[in-house]
Amino acid sequence: MNELLPSAERIAARLKARGETLAVGESSTGGLVCAALLAVPGASAWFLGGAVVYTVKAREALAGITAADMAGMRGATEPYAALLAERLRARHGATWGLAETGATGPAGNRYGDPPGHSCLAVAGPRALAVTLRTGSADRQANMRAFAARALALLEEALE
Amino acid sequence: MNELLPSAERIAARLKARGETLAVGESSTGGLVCAALLAVPGASAWFLGGAVVYTVKAREALAGITAADMAGMRGATEPYAALLAERLRARHGATWGLAETGATGPAGNRYGDPPGHSCLAVAGPRALAVTLRTGSADRQANMRAFAARALALLEEALE
Repeated sequence: MNELLPSAERIAARLKARGETLAVGESSTGGLVCAALLAVPGASAWFLGGAVVYTVKAREALAGITAADMAGMRGATEPYAALLAERLRARHGATWGLAETGATGPAGNRYGDPPGHSCLAVAGPRALAVTLRTGSADRQANMRAFAARALALLEEALE
Repeated sequence: MNELLPSAERIAARLKARGETLAVGESSTGGLVCAALLAVPGASAWFLGGAVVYTVKAREALAGITAADMAGMRGATEPYAALLAERLRARHGATWGLAETGATGPAGNRYGDPPGHSCLAVAGPRALAVTLRTGSADRQANMRAFAARALALLEEALE
């Protein structure tokens, strides 16, 4: 988590200076993005809430994404990351939404994506999406790499 | 996160062997409990979802806890931790719910609890609740200590 802290601190400073807020949706990073952000003192001024969405049930219960919303869409894609970011943003009334969805490993996911594949998106005043491929099957290393990329993407949006 | 992994692995083995599932609600641990559990390969077999509940809005949006539910209750208490655990459990249709609510620091919370105060609860076939006081105002150390206690409490429930 410590390696993520400098990025989290820059995000915190920018959000605080602007009076903006954030909600987060995570899949394969599993809570690591939220934990890095919330390690910054005073985070309650700008962090509203986060969802760790690991199942279809959680997708609906926590983010309000229904089967109809998913028509023509699957997990671990940029459009799904963008939808998750937007739904969490709207649900919390936040300025920004940040979301991640991917495959950490050691195996690939049920869609055929290899471990190390992650899609990340920011929703809000600027919308960004990116796909990352680490080439690694190391689960914990991928969680950290995906989380670092998620924070970097939000930093880009906040520039 | 690594120091939490042995406990997460024991929980994973027990849940998997029993065919049971888990949902998590976190406040001041900020995602660290979920991240530790999801660092275990194959966690998708038993981990359903998690909520990082940092605001009243998130409490309602992610856990369905209303102002009426909170009548006579406040955050950072064992009854609230128990409610959060039960709501996340029910919302995901999980066997077990695990929840944490507290004050990491460097300052205390708005209720007057000192930093290092955390309440943790398990809901499900067994219900447990406990209050922890670390005596530290180190935010990151408290996040780790609270997360470790949360995992230990779930281990107790699974014994």
